Amino acid sequence: MDKKENLGIVDTKFFNLPQGITLASGEKLEPVTIAYETYGALNKEKSNAVLILHALSGDAHAAGLHEGEDKPGWWDAMIGPAKAFDTNKYFVICSNVLGGCRGTTGPSSINLKTNKPYALGFPLISIGDMVTAQKALIDHLSIEKLLTVVGGSMGGMQVLSWLVKYPKAVRSAIPIATALKHSPQQIAFDEVGRQAIMADPNWKSGNYYDGTHPDSGLAVARMVGHITYMSDISMEEKFGRQRKNGVGPFKFTADFEVEGYLRYRGDNFVKRFDANSYLYITKAMDNFDASAKRPFHEVLSGQPVKVLAIAFKSDWLYPAYQSKEIVKACKHAGIETSYCEVDSTYGHDAFLLETEEETHLISHFLKSVSQKRGKT
Amino acid sequence: MDKKENLGIVDTKFFNLPQGITLASGEKLEPVTIAYETYGALNKEKSNAVLILHALSGDAHAAGLHEGEDKPGWWDAMIGPAKAFDTNKYFVICSNVLGGCRGTTGPSSINLKTNKPYALGFPLISIGDMVTAQKALIDHLSIEKLLTVVGGSMGGMQVLSWLVKYPKAVRSAIPIATALKHSPQQIAFDEVGRQAIMADPNWKSGNYYDGTHPDSGLAVARMVGHITYMSDISMEEKFGRQRKNGVGPFKFTADFEVEGYLRYRGDNFVKRFDANSYLYITKAMDNFDASAKRPFHEVLSGQPVKVLAIAFKSDWLYPAYQSKEIVKACKHAGIETSYCEVDSTYGHDAFLLETEEETHLISHFLKSVSQKRGKT
Repeated sequence: MDKKENLGIVDTKFFNLPQGITLASGEKLEPVTIAYETYGALNKEKSNAVLILHALSGDAHAAGLHEGEDKPGWWDAMIGPAKAFDTNKYFVICSNVLGGCRGTTGPSSINLKTNKPYALGFPLISIGDMVTAQKALIDHLSIEKLLTVVGGSMGGMQVLSWLVKYPKAVRSAIPIATALKHSPQQIAFDEVGRQAIMADPNWKSGNYYDGTHPDSGLAVARMVGHITYMSDISMEEKFGRQRKNGVGPFKFTADFEVEGYLRYRGDNFVKRFDANSYLYITKAMDNFDASAKRPFHEVLSGQPVKVLAIAFKSDWLYPAYQSKEIVKACKHAGIETSYCEVDSTYGHDAFLLETEEETHLISHFLKSVSQKRGKT
Repeated sequence: MDKKENLGIVDTKFFNLPQGITLASGEKLEPVTIAYETYGALNKEKSNAVLILHALSGDAHAAGLHEGEDKPGWWDAMIGPAKAFDTNKYFVICSNVLGGCRGTTGPSSINLKTNKPYALGFPLISIGDMVTAQKALIDHLSIEKLLTVVGGSMGGMQVLSWLVKYPKAVRSAIPIATALKHSPQQIAFDEVGRQAIMADPNWKSGNYYDGTHPDSGLAVARMVGHITYMSDISMEEKFGRQRKNGVGPFKFTADFEVEGYLRYRGDNFVKRFDANSYLYITKAMDNFDASAKRPFHEVLSGQPVKVLAIAFKSDWLYPAYQSKEIVKACKHAGIETSYCEVDSTYGHDAFLLETEEETHLISHFLKSVSQKRGKT
């Protein structure tokens, strides 16, 4: 086996669609800019393209380093020479989602009609709209058929949406730690985050761009999120009941390690994320239902696509039963489907952390998908 | 079997301790008022007293109706003639916890030194301090030995604290859906609630009593709480993905039923609860550790007390493994201990809702405890 290497310096590119895109709601959003990165090279047959789809707080920067920065992209352990998405073999693409705040058009973008940020003037978007934007990018890159679409959490919802909207444009799909639709508990956690943002007086019905941002509310939203991303066990292993510096109890400063960690993660998040994007994107997740128009298994029936679904034992935010529902629907549709429930203690975060296990599963899967192509 | 009856009109009484109490921290809190209710009558031997201990948001009004109100006390289904705590047999007492805001001295009470509410001038209190106050009340009622101490969630922590502090003063104990100490996940959920309150600009470092209260922050805290009190299944059964009035999707108004429910519960809570009490009480829960001074099983070793521990299968906030740890420690201490894991889908809320199953378990247990007394 070749030695895994890191990608080195990469940069974000921008694709402009002056004509914009038509949303599922019928509304027209124009213009649209899509921030994306690519790693590796597209082969002559244009058959080696892999589309990586990010989760709620992710962005286009999936791997490698940005000039002058020392923190690699969010899935760097998975993307690069000899890694799961081997850039010696595959052309890897990752774009920031529509509605985001990391280069792709979203509520913090300037509305050309008003010359001000959209704020809540931004239209409600869906997971399907994110995929519409990604399809435009893929067309722009002259790729007719993706070798695979892959993503965890909200990324997995986009994977499912690709299968529903463009089944002919994907050879395979890897939904990880995701769901055909949110349960009321998942909606409830998102709603608490939204409420925390909207309760912040600095939110001002979304019109905060020229003043103080609703950082306190967004930080609380992120803290709730972080609890749901970890497991009871992983928190126990990481923090226990350890107190900061071994002192305390204090009145209401963070005295337990776990409190300090959550505050730190909350405070850091607000530096790189837009509160309105948080509202729009979580709402898109809550509204997502892979069977909204037609049952998912009916849509997929007879499609020559191969699926690998991955779930994690300790993930209680997207419990394994939700991945099993995806697998059941795929099998019902007659699709070749593999499923693995990885024995991890990391909770939902496992999709970002269990890269060794994922590498094992995904590299085998991609090999078999590539080989299958030769035969069909 | 006798027919269950409701208690009818009851009222809250107040017990004043002008000399106050000495807290575990060494600080003196004076004066202290304790709000409490009693149901049934104390027998001549003073051997039939049951102390009910409430959870985070509970109060002294455990059963019956207050004059002019139509909502009974929080555990009304359990307390009354022929109910689990049969007021024909037992003298039932319930008091509001120290640090609370429902009649017992807490941060919203007037500090006689300043003639203003304590706010954050209120000392940090512990679960043990709540029990110290309850013991003063029990002494005042001339009860030397309680037939049982019983409570769910934070009430269960007080049960454990009674066992640690006053093992000679209890004949039996019924900890329900509780823990020897909070896990980091439980601390984390509490911390998010506290952060939501303290992020509300109306909180003003606790000095809000003469102005607008931090209702938005407290409502968010309560919403987080409510998610953790229910189970994935109970939310699915209660709300599914039902939209309000069948319409939507809307932008950021509550369009899913579950969103509306959480907002309603959040908004209602702020009418009856004080934000600073929320901070103090959750912090007391997080700091609680039944083995803080000496291992719990050592403290209890050889005590002639009988324990019934109850947990609920779908309770993920206080998972059954935490009740099993209590049971294990009790057995280690050589105490006669029964354990039941009730097969409920209600999540943590089950301790308030599974009253039929609890009635069955508790009435048998109390009967055996009463009989045992006759023999020893």
